[in-house]
Amino acid sequence: MIGEIVAIGDELTSGRILNTTSYFAASQLFAAGHEVAAMITIGDDPKLIGRTLLDSLARADFVVVTGGLGATSDDLTSEAVADALERPSTFYPEILDQIRASSKNAPAELRLSLEKLAWLPAGAHALKYDASTAGYFLVHENKPIFFLPGVPHEMEELLVETVISRLAIWEGEEVRQVRQLVYRVVGLLETQINECLAPLVDGAERVRIGYYPVFPEVHVSLTVVGVEALETDHLFTETDKEIRKLLGVHLYGTEAETLEAVVGRLLAENSMVLALAESCTGGLISHRITRVAGSSDYFLGGVVAYSNELKEQLLGVDGAIIAEYGAVSQETARAMAEGIRHGTGVDIALAVTGIAGPSGGTAEKPVGTVWFGLATAGETEVCKFCFDGERWQVQEAAANKALDLLRLTLIRHDYAKNQSCQLL
Amino acid sequence: MIGEIVAIGDELTSGRILNTTSYFAASQLFAAGHEVAAMITIGDDPKLIGRTLLDSLARADFVVVTGGLGATSDDLTSEAVADALERPSTFYPEILDQIRASSKNAPAELRLSLEKLAWLPAGAHALKYDASTAGYFLVHENKPIFFLPGVPHEMEELLVETVISRLAIWEGEEVRQVRQLVYRVVGLLETQINECLAPLVDGAERVRIGYYPVFPEVHVSLTVVGVEALETDHLFTETDKEIRKLLGVHLYGTEAETLEAVVGRLLAENSMVLALAESCTGGLISHRITRVAGSSDYFLGGVVAYSNELKEQLLGVDGAIIAEYGAVSQETARAMAEGIRHGTGVDIALAVTGIAGPSGGTAEKPVGTVWFGLATAGETEVCKFCFDGERWQVQEAAANKALDLLRLTLIRHDYAKNQSCQLL
Repeated sequence: MIGEIVAIGDELTSGRILNTTSYFAASQLFAAGHEVAAMITIGDDPKLIGRTLLDSLARADFVVVTGGLGATSDDLTSEAVADALERPSTFYPEILDQIRASSKNAPAELRLSLEKLAWLPAGAHALKYDASTAGYFLVHENKPIFFLPGVPHEMEELLVETVISRLAIWEGEEVRQVRQLVYRVVGLLETQINECLAPLVDGAERVRIGYYPVFPEVHVSLTVVGVEALETDHLFTETDKEIRKLLGVHLYGTEAETLEAVVGRLLAENSMVLALAESCTGGLISHRITRVAGSSDYFLGGVVAYSNELKEQLLGVDGAIIAEYGAVSQETARAMAEGIRHGTGVDIALAVTGIAGPSGGTAEKPVGTVWFGLATAGETEVCKFCFDGERWQVQEAAANKALDLLRLTLIRHDYAKNQSCQLL
Repeated sequence: MIGEIVAIGDELTSGRILNTTSYFAASQLFAAGHEVAAMITIGDDPKLIGRTLLDSLARADFVVVTGGLGATSDDLTSEAVADALERPSTFYPEILDQIRASSKNAPAELRLSLEKLAWLPAGAHALKYDASTAGYFLVHENKPIFFLPGVPHEMEELLVETVISRLAIWEGEEVRQVRQLVYRVVGLLETQINECLAPLVDGAERVRIGYYPVFPEVHVSLTVVGVEALETDHLFTETDKEIRKLLGVHLYGTEAETLEAVVGRLLAENSMVLALAESCTGGLISHRITRVAGSSDYFLGGVVAYSNELKEQLLGVDGAIIAEYGAVSQETARAMAEGIRHGTGVDIALAVTGIAGPSGGTAEKPVGTVWFGLATAGETEVCKFCFDGERWQVQEAAANKALDLLRLTLIRHDYAKNQSCQLL
């Protein structure tokens, strides 16, 4: 079914409170196979509430309204709905009994004010009524409208408990199947991925592909819709297979799996321990790795060798190498990686040295130039990449590239050796 | 002026992404004296985009549209708007030149696909065009419509830089005086700040104070509105003075000034150089310090001593101390701070060791227990704090506390010595 979500509250339109309830409702409705055509947020204005509800009803198969159901004077939803739908405000004694029973311990003056909660548009059916949560629904011109509280946890509970199940058994509704997956991609631009995947969508009305750049990565969503479950499953499986083939080694994970979690999993699977020597990334790679719970199993620590002194003192880099080739050079990257590996005795060590900017660049080594060194027992690999953007972008992109080089090394992909000095 | 905000994207209506851009726009427009009557979110459907824009234009004085401006096939906003407003898609060569100039280093095939960005509805004026950010506005039936990107940081930058100022000088609008300032506060809860500042707003209709928790800090906004400039300035200055007095040492900066930038400024002013020894924060403090351009002037680097081995090998902590008191103890924190200070010869060294969780806690040392050590030439201070929350929250709160301890030490405030083991 196609629905609309209407959220009511001055605190939302004035930007004082972030609206998370509509987001929650959309994700739950989507997961249940419904489509949300529009999410509308308006203030506590009775005329606007009435007009917005009538407009939504004219377009959608069902409407979810949140907010404005409480006992205080700025809660205007029920009155506004009664006017707009021409269903006079009606007193529901059984609702008042329920509310009173569940608020026995409340002060007398509060219990009196609760009476307002029992006046609802004619034809309303309670979803739940107690001292803390109020919610009802009514069917208007054969379309269900759900009225839920604005407080996130109350609204979320009622939505999951009552709205989703009532919509599932709604008569006359054709059951719609939805399958969705998010792919996390590194090393390709949004436009490059689009070019590569576009043929999958051409002429395929039931397949949608979305692109979401999450710097410096791109996340790609696949959505397949259908009427029959088996057929939808089949189309989804085939498209998924094709996407994985096309993205190849650039696809590092799906859904909420982060690059640092993938690297951690690969290190643990290979029983390897990692140490880091970071210069221009300044601790960002260590931070991302230690964000993952359990990282002490495969991460020993490292040195943030932000200055040349520390490169010599803590990593044992020969001062003559820095003097001859500079701190940003393949020679220094190699010496840093080998220095931290020998000093700590780990299986694999990664070093990063570059120019994050905004100053410090030269014609020969512009801002964004970053050398990576990867030392294992067998050998040390070095490679250079050039990143575009501001200081934070160079740092983020370099940290992501470092994690990706670790990933590619751990899956023994020789891509790492063959690519150098390109964007991203 | 009364406006509406229209956000476009399947990722929003399917509940995959939380819509924070409309919230940001509403709060900024509200602070600038405008009213947002409705915030509408719809999917990437050209007909729906067109109809929604026409409806909003019929009701509002101005419309802000976000999303769907990119170069990929699911970016449909400009085409839909051209159709709906009957303003044919027009090629703007000067916009293509701007985009090409700022993406000189991009691959040739990418640069070709950028041409799509230069086709806009007739009458469009560029707000900004480069490789990363696209935005334009047009005036339709005497009402301004702003088209901004959907990516939050791009959208927020353009909104603040261009939309607010263009609306302020919109003809026919009574010039309203607005003064605003954001205060950044550490070490106090939102409710504590509210209690302390609430009297300033009582009965003062022209003074608004907003609270925005940005974990683990709280940001407070002051907005003063008026009609006459001088009088508004006066009220703003008086209220600002009062707020600064009430927040005291908890106020560390204003507007976009970060805690790490303040610490950097204080280090530079005192001609002091810093080194770090991080255990449970895993590089996060180093990362925050090196995010600031020019940090190499006062930051030498440090050790991420995530394992006990590295605490001994790189910081010279006596293994007997760890064995007797544990890695999370005042003795180890002291030895780490003194170890990194002596090893590097810096003026001031900070060490952090704690239990970020989710596992590793005991009855005596629960998850969230963190010891800090601060070594200077004269002495070494240690103190303990207990943080609530999940792993990432303990890490973020501990890193913020470490930076704040540095700040308080550098301004020679004895608060650091007198507070121990409290929330935040």
